[in-house]
Amino acid sequence: MKICYFDHVATNPLYPDVFEAMVPYFKDEFGNPLSIYELGTRAKDAIEKSREKVASLINAKAREIIFTSSGAEANNFAMRGIALARQNEGNHIIVSRAEHHSILNSARFLEKNGFVVTYLPIDKYGIVDPERVKKSITKETTLISVIHGSSEVGTIEPIREIAQIAKEREVIVHTDAVATAGNIPLNVKELGVDLLSMTAHQFYGPKGAAALYVREGLRIVPLIYGGIQEGGRRAETENVPAIIGMGKAAELAKAEMSFRMEHSGRLRDRMIEGMKRIDNVYLTGHPAERLPGHASFCVEYIEGESMLLLLAAKGIYAASGSACTSKALKASPVLLAMGIPAALAQGSIVFSLGRENTDDDIDYLLEEFPQVVQRLREMSPYAKGWGDKKAEVECV
Amino acid sequence: MKICYFDHVATNPLYPDVFEAMVPYFKDEFGNPLSIYELGTRAKDAIEKSREKVASLINAKAREIIFTSSGAEANNFAMRGIALARQNEGNHIIVSRAEHHSILNSARFLEKNGFVVTYLPIDKYGIVDPERVKKSITKETTLISVIHGSSEVGTIEPIREIAQIAKEREVIVHTDAVATAGNIPLNVKELGVDLLSMTAHQFYGPKGAAALYVREGLRIVPLIYGGIQEGGRRAETENVPAIIGMGKAAELAKAEMSFRMEHSGRLRDRMIEGMKRIDNVYLTGHPAERLPGHASFCVEYIEGESMLLLLAAKGIYAASGSACTSKALKASPVLLAMGIPAALAQGSIVFSLGRENTDDDIDYLLEEFPQVVQRLREMSPYAKGWGDKKAEVECV
Repeated sequence: MKICYFDHVATNPLYPDVFEAMVPYFKDEFGNPLSIYELGTRAKDAIEKSREKVASLINAKAREIIFTSSGAEANNFAMRGIALARQNEGNHIIVSRAEHHSILNSARFLEKNGFVVTYLPIDKYGIVDPERVKKSITKETTLISVIHGSSEVGTIEPIREIAQIAKEREVIVHTDAVATAGNIPLNVKELGVDLLSMTAHQFYGPKGAAALYVREGLRIVPLIYGGIQEGGRRAETENVPAIIGMGKAAELAKAEMSFRMEHSGRLRDRMIEGMKRIDNVYLTGHPAERLPGHASFCVEYIEGESMLLLLAAKGIYAASGSACTSKALKASPVLLAMGIPAALAQGSIVFSLGRENTDDDIDYLLEEFPQVVQRLREMSPYAKGWGDKKAEVECV
Repeated sequence: MKICYFDHVATNPLYPDVFEAMVPYFKDEFGNPLSIYELGTRAKDAIEKSREKVASLINAKAREIIFTSSGAEANNFAMRGIALARQNEGNHIIVSRAEHHSILNSARFLEKNGFVVTYLPIDKYGIVDPERVKKSITKETTLISVIHGSSEVGTIEPIREIAQIAKEREVIVHTDAVATAGNIPLNVKELGVDLLSMTAHQFYGPKGAAALYVREGLRIVPLIYGGIQEGGRRAETENVPAIIGMGKAAELAKAEMSFRMEHSGRLRDRMIEGMKRIDNVYLTGHPAERLPGHASFCVEYIEGESMLLLLAAKGIYAASGSACTSKALKASPVLLAMGIPAALAQGSIVFSLGRENTDDDIDYLLEEFPQVVQRLREMSPYAKGWGDKKAEVECV
């Protein structure tokens, strides 16, 4: 059966060159980077080279990169690490309603522990208004965290403008760039952010390697205490092979970025054009300010899960929202925050493309998808009763 | 050059069968376990099989295993997760002076956040007296954490007795079994512990996979918030290959445990016998209640680092204490807590053996080590001046 993998926001396949770079560290080069003999120092040197490559991908300095095991850990670390480090300066934190659960649930944890959190609204495109950020800042505000690019609706946020506003008020800015780092050009200096989360498996690197950029000189309280790894800021015996893989993946992402963006952007545009021809299928997220490989829709009168199952039976792999909540069977809070009605939000489907997708994949999807929609609508009690309510739906 | 790897407490080489088990998950089986199509469900199923194998190694139920990325993370998670979950019941925590830095520094973090910590003394063998545990428990005590086996001095603690005392007082017990799990038989039910940390790379599994056993029904506050992975108790896109590797390593450790213990125990005994013949070399830790592959010493008039460097030049890889502090160049707090004088503690050296070590390795060490000691003592200003102070040293 033909397989079309359209779920790159869930995870990427590992780039074969990345795997090859990792292999020696699963075999002879197994040393602990803290050991003082050569087996250890070679591992340490390899990690530091990897750190340089990861730093280079976002125009940071190597010493501004702290390796973590996941984007979720990087997000938790940023939120709690800065909230605690600055708790003598204030107890107010600002996040947006477009955030991933690792940010939102960290915010809720902080709320239970004496912090006050403002949840910024988003518009119908999923965008945070920098003016709302400005109005939300109080004397107590120490941290703002806004996602860079949404894995659910593809929208890219105006982080530069938000960071500029924050800087004027001496508020620290974190951005969750898990979906964007390695996929679009990122420059922490130009963005003006103080912290940035990224993860390797979103740009053809391995699972188990991720990083938090922490601007030089910024104090952060560790999330994981222990040994002296990562300058004492994040303890654990380094996952050497994964870190080496992340470095290699960063190097390849930088080298291939233009090709990847052009390739998946072109396929995405073809997909969106084709999907729009189906009745009552709405693009979600911003039409222009979005991830190159990201095409997300709401399909009226249908549940996302049903579409996914029928598509999967045809070898087409997609998602109905964030992978981290895919089994929760709730309408996406991000879609709801965008003002999409709950019933329509249930019909969410996300296609995310990558370098290995082809025009054939798009042809196949555009041939199969209308049939899936038709079949499900024939089965749907909503399709009949709600047909004339179409005009009430306000979507992109 | 002949290489003798005697640093298994720093990390183990990856068992080739474990690597082979991981390879498919770096290639075709790259799915996110939360995805609902087959590529995802196969990854999810593989993780659950791995969880059963890890659980089986310590006689736990699969649902009592929470995967983490490291032993350090598991230790931090246990300490903070229980302290916070039970903060309405009390704010007193007990740890021992034999703990790893991931426990000690978590304890210090809690002290800064309103908790009171008792640091239990250890005797000259590194052992915690269960009677001292009993006396330290107050009405406010919610958690006791005592290491199972020390990677620094090899001593195995009387966890069963400690857990029994704790249970009578309704205090939760955690043990850091990073050095013991997979190396000696472990049965959480017999030990009576509520939580137990373990890590794969200490039993020939990969770096990046570890676990916290949490007794069924026990509430724990997450350390890493986000998606619904691990029953909502620990978020992040699972490091599938590493988790698969941990399961395979657990299976192999269980199958080979008797052989491994007998093999490394016999080599260790030969090593200790040989080392005792060198003047002013003292075994540290308990002579009998110790890890099978663990031989640790203090060598008078010499610094540990110098020994390591000269040994490394001969292809003999060892450690001077915990890998996580090896570059801190301080005398080990564990050795000091055992009452070993600071000057002697500087001469700490730890050899930790594994399944691939041979009698030849021991012969080679016993031939080379006396020469290393002699050479360093000839260079040492301490050896001359302090020679007649030997009688003051009280050691094992």
